[in-house]
Amino acid sequence: GLASATGTGKKLTIGLVPADGIGREVIPAAQKVMEAALPNRFSFLHLDCGFEHFQKTGVALPAETVQRLRDECAGALFGAVSSPSHKVAGYSSPIVALRKQLDLYANVRPVASPLGATGKPIDMVIIRENTECLYIKSERLLSTPLGKIAFADRQITEYASKRIGRMAYTIASQRLAARRAASGSSAGSLPPKATVTIVHKSNVLSITDGLFRESVRAVQADDPTFADIHVEEQLVDSMVYRMFREPEVFDVAVAPNLYGDIISDGAAALVGSLGVVGSANVGDTFVLGEPVHGSAPDIAGKGIANPIAAVRSAALLLAHIGESTPAHRINAAVDKVLVANDPSILTPDLGGRGTTDKVVRAIIAAL
Amino acid sequence: GLASATGTGKKLTIGLVPADGIGREVIPAAQKVMEAALPNRFSFLHLDCGFEHFQKTGVALPAETVQRLRDECAGALFGAVSSPSHKVAGYSSPIVALRKQLDLYANVRPVASPLGATGKPIDMVIIRENTECLYIKSERLLSTPLGKIAFADRQITEYASKRIGRMAYTIASQRLAARRAASGSSAGSLPPKATVTIVHKSNVLSITDGLFRESVRAVQADDPTFADIHVEEQLVDSMVYRMFREPEVFDVAVAPNLYGDIISDGAAALVGSLGVVGSANVGDTFVLGEPVHGSAPDIAGKGIANPIAAVRSAALLLAHIGESTPAHRINAAVDKVLVANDPSILTPDLGGRGTTDKVVRAIIAAL
Ligand SMILES: CC(C)[C@H](C(=O)O)[C@@H](O)C(=O)O
Ligand SMILES: CC(C)[C@H](C(=O)O)[C@@H](O)C(=O)O
Repeated sequence: GLASATGTGKKLTIGLVPADGIGREVIPAAQKVMEAALPNRFSFLHLDCGFEHFQKTGVALPAETVQRLRDECAGALFGAVSSPSHKVAGYSSPIVALRKQLDLYANVRPVASPLGATGKPIDMVIIRENTECLYIKSERLLSTPLGKIAFADRQITEYASKRIGRMAYTIASQRLAARRAASGSSAGSLPPKATVTIVHKSNVLSITDGLFRESVRAVQADDPTFADIHVEEQLVDSMVYRMFREPEVFDVAVAPNLYGDIISDGAAALVGSLGVVGSANVGDTFVLGEPVHGSAPDIAGKGIANPIAAVRSAALLLAHIGESTPAHRINAAVDKVLVANDPSILTPDLGGRGTTDKVVRAIIAAL
Repeated sequence: GLASATGTGKKLTIGLVPADGIGREVIPAAQKVMEAALPNRFSFLHLDCGFEHFQKTGVALPAETVQRLRDECAGALFGAVSSPSHKVAGYSSPIVALRKQLDLYANVRPVASPLGATGKPIDMVIIRENTECLYIKSERLLSTPLGKIAFADRQITEYASKRIGRMAYTIASQRLAARRAASGSSAGSLPPKATVTIVHKSNVLSITDGLFRESVRAVQADDPTFADIHVEEQLVDSMVYRMFREPEVFDVAVAPNLYGDIISDGAAALVGSLGVVGSANVGDTFVLGEPVHGSAPDIAGKGIANPIAAVRSAALLLAHIGESTPAHRINAAVDKVLVANDPSILTPDLGGRGTTDKVVRAIIAAL
């Protein structure tokens, strides 16, 4: 758990769960960057999971993986899982299970770029609820004379909505404090502000999304620390629309699980590529870094996967376990590599002809 | 019903349901364009519904509105409904109810522009299932010692998935036929193709979205007429990502209700504005045109709402009731006005300083 990470001089154990496809390329890449940023600080624990592991063993997420993460690791990095193209009996996504079993209730996805798709800077963080909504996977199939009928339960609780709301306000408060510190001297300009946008669809789902919205609002009403945060709401369809049109207006967005999944992929497109967006699955006692991209079977094994999302996820992981200085250094090095925009280094998703390895070496050189 | 629309020389009765906000401005605008395109062909029936009507009468969708649409109208045009910012007891969205009560099971949303946001032409049609998914609004709230817990049911049936699949393949076949006709002479170029992209999230919702995917695929397997259609699948999160990145690759997309809602708003952003995208809610015996935009309370009453989405919805309505020549003329006139790109005419959502009325007059002049 997190406790083991702080204060001690001894090595931090970081779990590595590459899982499938390009996960096996980007996780070792991120590991190299972590080692270069903080030599001799980490010991790495390699753990199994994924669809390929399932095909070999019949188990997608071994109990041992969960237990060793919980017992031995200060935090971990996850790669990506392949989704079988047809329903496979007994298989179910191990990342969804991992989030639930380690109670990693928030998926924090910073999406930033000095020059977004619309030509303006984008700097938003998407806080996705990670444990409920349709992701409880409570589904059933009925065979009727009129054909098959399937149902899924969507669960929204006050408890989970409040804790994700608290996470959103906390992050917004940190951003507000940083903005105030940065603008301290420039008199006359507008006072810094921070906004939390609550994403929902309560015009249709008045009870479930109504509860989400009310619960997130209640956190602010109950805690004067958050009084300064500006709160807005956006229906999920309009949110996608506005993110395409004016992504620069958004700051912190908080959403139930599925909407969060969708809008974070949308936001990734606006900053160039899924290959540059990292995330952290955060709980009260554990953090799991995870690139937002998938296992990309089309390019797996070719050495051209973009490692930046995994590297940024490693930085998020470090920041969460108290190592914020190396986290900043890693992100700054990544920014340098992106700004240099050298097509012989950057991977094809960014229009380059480089490789995973070249990007890693460039990041390490820029540290 | 549709039967009353065809073949006869007598007037067609078109229902007009402006509902709330800018609905009251864009529906009369579309009416003017219809009258100009086919003088003396229509009689219009004005019908009540909406949140404002609810506030006055306690009823959002009067039974009389549904009955007169069904009994007296060849088709209808709907404006937009306001969503109250807080849960209002007894109120529930009348458009969702209308779609269900008239069994308008498909929402057909053509999204096209010669120059989309990424600089390439976009020409896609989103076919959204309109009757089920989370839109069945079966929700419940439990109060427990651990706080409130809410559930919503998501329903996917083989029946509804197959009929929406059939709609998607039928529209894809029409597009393929049109492409073949258009490319008939140009030897040497690639043979025209049409693609249906099935949008789902079966990596998480293996039973409900699994059923959607299988059912849509089964329609093709069972009907040799559709053998030529290329079928692809896209997870909804990746779909939003790819639509931002390379919208030009999509042709016909078919999706369960909520995903369809979200991706059609996203697609609208790519062609300039929600204010230019029309839709048709289509059933076997009725069609209801509906702009994709909302009631836009911020600009309602100012005379600056973009009428193009409503005008295009009117054209879709006409095409569906057998009046395809005026439908084409109306769309061509709209295209001319858009291409002319006169900022003194176009409305603010398109960067202009024009008015609803100026756009209407320009469209009528271009007919
Ligand atoms: C692989 C899939 C189950 C997962 C999700 O939907 O959560 C992925 O899309 C993500 O965003 O991490
Ligand atoms: C107003 C709302 C209920 C509606 C929907 O979600 O269907 C709207 O967003 C739409 O797309 O027509």
